[in-house]
Amino acid sequence: SGYTQAVWQSFSHPGKFYDGFSIKRARLDFQGHFASQFDYRLLFDFVGSSGASGTAPTGGALISPTLIEAYVTYKPFHFLHLKAGQMILAFSQENMTQDRNLDLIERSQVVNALVARKGDAAGGLVDSIGNQNGRDIGLQASGSLIRKQDTYFLDYSVQLLNGAGINTLDNNQSKDLDARLVIHPLKFLSIGGSYYNGNDRFTSSPTKDQKRIRWGTELALNYSGLSLKGEYIRGQEGNSSQVNHPGDAGLTVHEGWYGQAAYFFLPRRLQAVFRYDYYDPNTAKTQNRSTYYDLGMNYFFNVWTKLQVYYSLRDQQGPAINNNMFEAQLQLAF
Amino acid sequence: SGYTQAVWQSFSHPGKFYDGFSIKRARLDFQGHFASQFDYRLLFDFVGSSGASGTAPTGGALISPTLIEAYVTYKPFHFLHLKAGQMILAFSQENMTQDRNLDLIERSQVVNALVARKGDAAGGLVDSIGNQNGRDIGLQASGSLIRKQDTYFLDYSVQLLNGAGINTLDNNQSKDLDARLVIHPLKFLSIGGSYYNGNDRFTSSPTKDQKRIRWGTELALNYSGLSLKGEYIRGQEGNSSQVNHPGDAGLTVHEGWYGQAAYFFLPRRLQAVFRYDYYDPNTAKTQNRSTYYDLGMNYFFNVWTKLQVYYSLRDQQGPAINNNMFEAQLQLAF
Amino acid sequence: SGYTQAVWQSFSHPGKFYDGFSIKRARLDFQGHFASQFDYRLLFDFVGSSGASGTAPTGGALISPTLIEAYVTYKPFHFLHLKAGQMILAFSQENMTQDRNLDLIERSQVVNALVARKGDAAGGLVDSIGNQNGRDIGLQASGSLIRKQDTYFLDYSVQLLNGAGINTLDNNQSKDLDARLVIHPLKFLSIGGSYYNGNDRFTSSPTKDQKRIRWGTELALNYSGLSLKGEYIRGQEGNSSQVNHPGDAGLTVHEGWYGQAAYFFLPRRLQAVFRYDYYDPNTAKTQNRSTYYDLGMNYFFNVWTKLQVYYSLRDQQGPAINNNMFEAQLQLAF
Repeated sequence: SGYTQAVWQSFSHPGKFYDGFSIKRARLDFQGHFASQFDYRLLFDFVGSSGASGTAPTGGALISPTLIEAYVTYKPFHFLHLKAGQMILAFSQENMTQDRNLDLIERSQVVNALVARKGDAAGGLVDSIGNQNGRDIGLQASGSLIRKQDTYFLDYSVQLLNGAGINTLDNNQSKDLDARLVIHPLKFLSIGGSYYNGNDRFTSSPTKDQKRIRWGTELALNYSGLSLKGEYIRGQEGNSSQVNHPGDAGLTVHEGWYGQAAYFFLPRRLQAVFRYDYYDPNTAKTQNRSTYYDLGMNYFFNVWTKLQVYYSLRDQQGPAINNNMFEAQLQLAF
Repeated sequence: SGYTQAVWQSFSHPGKFYDGFSIKRARLDFQGHFASQFDYRLLFDFVGSSGASGTAPTGGALISPTLIEAYVTYKPFHFLHLKAGQMILAFSQENMTQDRNLDLIERSQVVNALVARKGDAAGGLVDSIGNQNGRDIGLQASGSLIRKQDTYFLDYSVQLLNGAGINTLDNNQSKDLDARLVIHPLKFLSIGGSYYNGNDRFTSSPTKDQKRIRWGTELALNYSGLSLKGEYIRGQEGNSSQVNHPGDAGLTVHEGWYGQAAYFFLPRRLQAVFRYDYYDPNTAKTQNRSTYYDLGMNYFFNVWTKLQVYYSLRDQQGPAINNNMFEAQLQLAF
Repeated sequence: SGYTQAVWQSFSHPGKFYDGFSIKRARLDFQGHFASQFDYRLLFDFVGSSGASGTAPTGGALISPTLIEAYVTYKPFHFLHLKAGQMILAFSQENMTQDRNLDLIERSQVVNALVARKGDAAGGLVDSIGNQNGRDIGLQASGSLIRKQDTYFLDYSVQLLNGAGINTLDNNQSKDLDARLVIHPLKFLSIGGSYYNGNDRFTSSPTKDQKRIRWGTELALNYSGLSLKGEYIRGQEGNSSQVNHPGDAGLTVHEGWYGQAAYFFLPRRLQAVFRYDYYDPNTAKTQNRSTYYDLGMNYFFNVWTKLQVYYSLRDQQGPAINNNMFEAQLQLAF
């Protein structure tokens, strides 16, 4: 199976790329199940790693296809699934939502910036380890506990990862740890938290190991046609501990959050979405925060085809720049 | 599905690449239909953008796979199909013929040079916007009108395109327009014309918007085992209008045409093809015209496998160079 | 179909890459048969050409997908199969074993070094024509002769190849010849030899044609759960003939051999493997030989999934370096 997304984009930011059509993703997805206990997935994207809210036009350069995911899962019990390979980082509910199932065309700033997603490097929206599609290579143990009728009360996952990103060998000896816990007090309610602690080499100083720490908390509610989601994520880069050296210049702390409401005006057909999206790329500096007011409309022609429209009113502190963005995206999945 | 083409090539041109085997194309093709009104196609080539009548040997460099097409079609009526994504340029019948269905192994000079196909850059056979596989990104409206028993009298298509080529974002604000009309006065006869008007940045001067205009006319006749085809295409690059400034040095005008006859000596098995192929890369200059006398034999083992043989006697004005070419190509489609 | 391999690797060699997880291969494999006489194969790897026992870490660089095989086979008789395209080099039984069916995770030194496989360039383990995945582009005639009940006594193959490697055009006029003969005196016993004679351009001096000659002999025995394999391969690069100019400095001669025993302790489940693996990169020099004592355990979960463990005790002459290696590899084929 697979899917493709054709986009019309209009971006006001001067000096950034122009209005135009583009193919955002063209993915082939090979998934399967063996003997009820083994799963696998191979996911390829033929539209490489160009930035969605990119910098300059790529100017005719061919973009290389990329292996996105490649893993094997062994599922002996409901409370224990083992996964090995290149997989999604189990950190943040939005990061774990597949691109094809996003409520809005663009992800939130804080997930783009702190979970190794593609972002706007010029605007500070890029992770210290670069764009890794929110994925990494390693091992995962996960599972669901405490059955309540047909659902479980608790989901957990623990990952041991290279921390160097996808399609590459590790660049240091230490491995990174990622842990995540989500509880469901009610069937339609999820409350969770994620924690990541790693030693990585940053794209800005590739020869030095530095701490890369993330934590986040999240909430999701799905009731009838209504969906509410929110996340707060905080990250720090650099070798000093923030607790002991709160004013240390070698340490950068970022944080951001979003709150989102979506409603189906026509059941399974027409959905409207609003998101408040806030990000501070460096809490030690002022006049650098960025707030997006994002509006979206999604029309589902059928289960394979949807048309999404997105308008983002963007308010950035500092020099006044009009960088509002409009996008229309047609997605087909097969 | 997909197909692959293995080639033996012998090229007399001194300094160009040598005799040898090569894989010309290895394509995966994912097509499908949904609910009778939706189509999609994802087409990938794993043999990147090396020139067929290329320049120097690539010398061991790996050639990157490329996304060729990615589109979605919505077909509410026979007279209106809407297509969005990366698609073939609806300009010239030869350009719209898929590589796997070509009568001769190589396309005509004028289509290679003026419809953004791969060509011989050293010989002037390359489009001002480079090799884009005859494709671009945008929107298309097309349809068939005036039913006559089981066929239609008229086919049209209109495209709004980036004009910057495939697998890239647009590089300017303006969009390009492409229009095409074909009529069928008899069931076995097609007469048509295409027009393209765009503002693009050329590979030779990538920072400046310039006009890129094309028009062409074509004819095709298929009767029993006989097939006759012909096309004339004219193009101009540069910002001056040719009408007002016929001698303007900033303007380049190219033109070319071909006439082709093919006949099945053994029905559906053995076909012979002859093509007269003329191209003038700059009508303002002399001693630069190029005429190819192309001969081909096609043997169809079965519906999936064919062997094509091609010999091209090439007469180029200017310094005498022997650049005759022989090719044998085995194609398998699955 | 396809397969993927997720690896944990621990490599003692100082200055080489670190311990870590990686995706070794992620391959898509399209094979089929037409009308009982035609076969085809398209094989793609989405984890490009990074070295298995590589040099420095690739440091975040994306590795490009690659076309590995693309061929068509025509099989009119048992004694004559014709193949055209990009295919495996019919030289050495280990080279002709697919990666997914290897007894040990890593190939022997001599096959990596002399059959255009990926190797450790820093350790001299790389072919003069570079890493070509043991493949090339050209034509092959092969077949089986002298039927004995349900098996044949003799298999042969002859290949005419570019000699320049995969995914590239030929870089010289001459074609390379490869021939191979295997006999089966008993049903469970194979004895064979291969010979290769080519004129190639080496990665170390890409503008000059040089002789590249290989010959090898091999033996394989499969009886119940026991498997014994051995090969000796000798190669020479350079334009002088070794016979006439045994001390010529322009000529390099390499040789190596391995002997391997494998046994299934649990039938079709658990296999143990030992290999003695010797390689001399230049017979004219001393203190440069390398001996690996390789141990492996293979556990087959089912026909699609296996876990392989590999430990290599490595004894290299010259300055003492600890470059022992441990690998654990989970492979899933679908």
